[in-house]
Amino acid sequence: MSVPQAASSLQLCRIMRPDDANIVGNVHGGIILKMIEEAGCIVGTRHCNTQNGDRCLAALVRVEKTEFLSPMFIGEVAHVTAEITYSSKHSLEVQVKVMAENILTGAKKLANKAALWYVPCSLQNVDKIMEVPPIKYASEDQEEEGRKRYEAQKMERMETKARVEEVVPLPPNPEDPPKEQYTVGFSQSNLIHLVGPSDCTLHDYVHGGVTMKLMDEVAGIVAARHCNTNVVTASVDAINFHRKIKKGCVVTVTGRLTFVSNKSMEIEVLVDASSLVEEEKGKYRAVSAFFTFISLDKFNKPLPVPPLKIQGEEEQRRFEEGKVRYLQNKAKRLADKEGHK
Amino acid sequence: MSVPQAASSLQLCRIMRPDDANIVGNVHGGIILKMIEEAGCIVGTRHCNTQNGDRCLAALVRVEKTEFLSPMFIGEVAHVTAEITYSSKHSLEVQVKVMAENILTGAKKLANKAALWYVPCSLQNVDKIMEVPPIKYASEDQEEEGRKRYEAQKMERMETKARVEEVVPLPPNPEDPPKEQYTVGFSQSNLIHLVGPSDCTLHDYVHGGVTMKLMDEVAGIVAARHCNTNVVTASVDAINFHRKIKKGCVVTVTGRLTFVSNKSMEIEVLVDASSLVEEEKGKYRAVSAFFTFISLDKFNKPLPVPPLKIQGEEEQRRFEEGKVRYLQNKAKRLADKEGHK
Amino acid sequence: MSVPQAASSLQLCRIMRPDDANIVGNVHGGIILKMIEEAGCIVGTRHCNTQNGDRCLAALVRVEKTEFLSPMFIGEVAHVTAEITYSSKHSLEVQVKVMAENILTGAKKLANKAALWYVPCSLQNVDKIMEVPPIKYASEDQEEEGRKRYEAQKMERMETKARVEEVVPLPPNPEDPPKEQYTVGFSQSNLIHLVGPSDCTLHDYVHGGVTMKLMDEVAGIVAARHCNTNVVTASVDAINFHRKIKKGCVVTVTGRLTFVSNKSMEIEVLVDASSLVEEEKGKYRAVSAFFTFISLDKFNKPLPVPPLKIQGEEEQRRFEEGKVRYLQNKAKRLADKEGHK
Repeated sequence: MSVPQAASSLQLCRIMRPDDANIVGNVHGGIILKMIEEAGCIVGTRHCNTQNGDRCLAALVRVEKTEFLSPMFIGEVAHVTAEITYSSKHSLEVQVKVMAENILTGAKKLANKAALWYVPCSLQNVDKIMEVPPIKYASEDQEEEGRKRYEAQKMERMETKARVEEVVPLPPNPEDPPKEQYTVGFSQSNLIHLVGPSDCTLHDYVHGGVTMKLMDEVAGIVAARHCNTNVVTASVDAINFHRKIKKGCVVTVTGRLTFVSNKSMEIEVLVDASSLVEEEKGKYRAVSAFFTFISLDKFNKPLPVPPLKIQGEEEQRRFEEGKVRYLQNKAKRLADKEGHK
Repeated sequence: MSVPQAASSLQLCRIMRPDDANIVGNVHGGIILKMIEEAGCIVGTRHCNTQNGDRCLAALVRVEKTEFLSPMFIGEVAHVTAEITYSSKHSLEVQVKVMAENILTGAKKLANKAALWYVPCSLQNVDKIMEVPPIKYASEDQEEEGRKRYEAQKMERMETKARVEEVVPLPPNPEDPPKEQYTVGFSQSNLIHLVGPSDCTLHDYVHGGVTMKLMDEVAGIVAARHCNTNVVTASVDAINFHRKIKKGCVVTVTGRLTFVSNKSMEIEVLVDASSLVEEEKGKYRAVSAFFTFISLDKFNKPLPVPPLKIQGEEEQRRFEEGKVRYLQNKAKRLADKEGHK
Repeated sequence: MSVPQAASSLQLCRIMRPDDANIVGNVHGGIILKMIEEAGCIVGTRHCNTQNGDRCLAALVRVEKTEFLSPMFIGEVAHVTAEITYSSKHSLEVQVKVMAENILTGAKKLANKAALWYVPCSLQNVDKIMEVPPIKYASEDQEEEGRKRYEAQKMERMETKARVEEVVPLPPNPEDPPKEQYTVGFSQSNLIHLVGPSDCTLHDYVHGGVTMKLMDEVAGIVAARHCNTNVVTASVDAINFHRKIKKGCVVTVTGRLTFVSNKSMEIEVLVDASSLVEEEKGKYRAVSAFFTFISLDKFNKPLPVPPLKIQGEEEQRRFEEGKVRYLQNKAKRLADKEGHK
């Protein structure tokens, strides 16, 4: 039995406030990611509870690569539309669109489009994955397209899972001398956050959107430290949420530059969690992702970015990998443009 | 035995911050309503626990019509004074006054005056209404006046209870074509909010003040969309809180214009709640109210409001009803003025 | 001309919410410090504007040593009373008391008592210190006592100013191996925070209370990492605010254990600020202080604290200094007790 269309879509709106933006008024990318995830979580949870069986919550497992298409400002209204676009046996895809409306002029522009993958976890037992009620598709083609996206993300999640775990953890060292400007070490930043009740779902696990907001915050500080200008999030590579983070944990979010092109900076962000009070005291990698930032002048035009001073083989290797991602994305954007002609 | 005066009054104050205000610095009406309710809840709960028996929390059931008498700005200090002014067997009235103090100039002005009705719910069993310890009155007249207010609000609550439930809910439809400017559909807005722990009382039910803040936010977006200017809350009609909203629910708040006069807009705001995970999946109407907004120029002077384009009989009926409320309020204000002469 | 008493005192109150507390329900010391400072700032600013001349804001320059006398919990109401108790030509002392009220049982207890020093800065020119209108004293003795406190804090502020500046900054080092448990390095933590509009006064400088909240947050994480239990703030040594922090800055807050007794941990917290966008890109030490935490079992009884593994001369020196402070405080508490007999 499938669910009526109404239950599988959702619209929400919110005015952008001063705390949502940086000092020149640009709404933080992290705020937009957090709204996107809230909409996705609601529509996903609602859908997965239209069946018999345990009550469950939709837990975010992946966000596809997303681009910030135009800036949003304080006082504008963000309209977030979420719709379930594919369901597999144990996961579902939600596509979310964010429109920015200037309520003084009436102007509207597309700020972001994202695709999120959720998995329903039983409320009684968070480790029990429930079945997802199938959705109805407008056409067979639509279903087939969804199945392709599903297979592609499944493969990519497995791949990164292996890679992500091996990254070395990053404890700070108090006695080091100050770093030289424009090096990776100079702008590297990390924050810690004690997970509070408002960060969490009914399961007492951190909302994916809260994690993404923290990641964007650190990445923005790294980028601003590198170029000392107004910086904004341009895009975020696919993010996989490997392990859940529980209420009461300390989250350490570390950001470091990996690659710098003429007009953009790629920042790798690592999220580590550790319980303060529980037996298993280990720190573990919960999430990692690449954020791309650009630097803007006061008319919101892109500025050139200072080159990155690479030190050591490790940094060189990460730089080369970043360059490959950069060129792939560039080629993909070009191809998309051609495709639209 | 009655309670000493000191226990039945309370003062709280807070500096207004950037997030409390819109982009031109006017503090949102919803922020003021939230502070009013917090003061009322403290003084009410404290009073109802001066008896033996179950510990209990004062739950907001009604706010009388209230007017925003003068604007507040960022950096000003809001002083909120709450006092219990009437007690029936199972409910109590709290009158609250909000003064805005400019701590730089020393200037003070009355920003708002409100009357709220609370009912004590047992902490062990939220559905058990406790008895209210009687308060002492300064005079018999005072008690008699209070009894009249009590009877009046009781009748009105019963009336609206019936009316409110029948209102048709308003699901958004993403596929609709864009609406024509100045119609009801053009400015209609809705937000959804996932109820978190900080929104809730010790009972895990949403604070009335939190709901009012969300209602004011939606009404403000509707008003700004209609006239594309700086808008502020002028008054709020009596609000009845018919049904409680539990932690973990999704709240949908919908606002639509019902009536527009030369200088004001009346917006009907409907609050629907639904549990994301529980068996009874029904959506229910928790609260509804009418907010009146005015449009201001940059010197805080009222601007004319564009007329509303009515479409269909339903909108016409609501417009006529709004007009009646508008004329009644106008007549009442005039009568009050005469009375003060 | 002196100011009437009413203008120089203030009461504020607020319900403690889940977000104000840790997972076992203890309100964070940092939340209490923030409320204390908000009350002090209002009463100080109001007083300093009762004269002719530039409008000004009271900026926090020092908080005297303060103890957390009894724990506060979610659902309790914090009552904060602030009173101006001394005025010199360019500064004033505000004494603040925090009472915790359980509105269900009516029980009240003293949670904190603090003394804060403010300096009035002109709104037109933040570097211009204004004169403080003299307050009226109840007796000559009272004035004389105040003068002694004023002289004592003035001397101490000068002393620490020199000491604080020389502390080595603490950049993180990504490639270090994990630290051994119970060492200083193991629990050392740091957070970064991008200063937003709601953190700031009308001057666009960070509220002292916001800084103290961040400091307490880091200190709490250090303490919890050391003993893996529920920890609470027991006391805070005098804090001097040497340099102001502007909106848009990045604040780095670092905490490290300096001394551990049988039942308490002393954590040094360093606050460094740096502008992200301005010419002068240097990082500077804005504040530093010592926080003392204790570890509690589930009945809120103190637990023994694991000994600290000292590594190197520098850590040994800081440990010895911490021990001196610990013994001095212990002797002072004993003397105070004797004095009360």
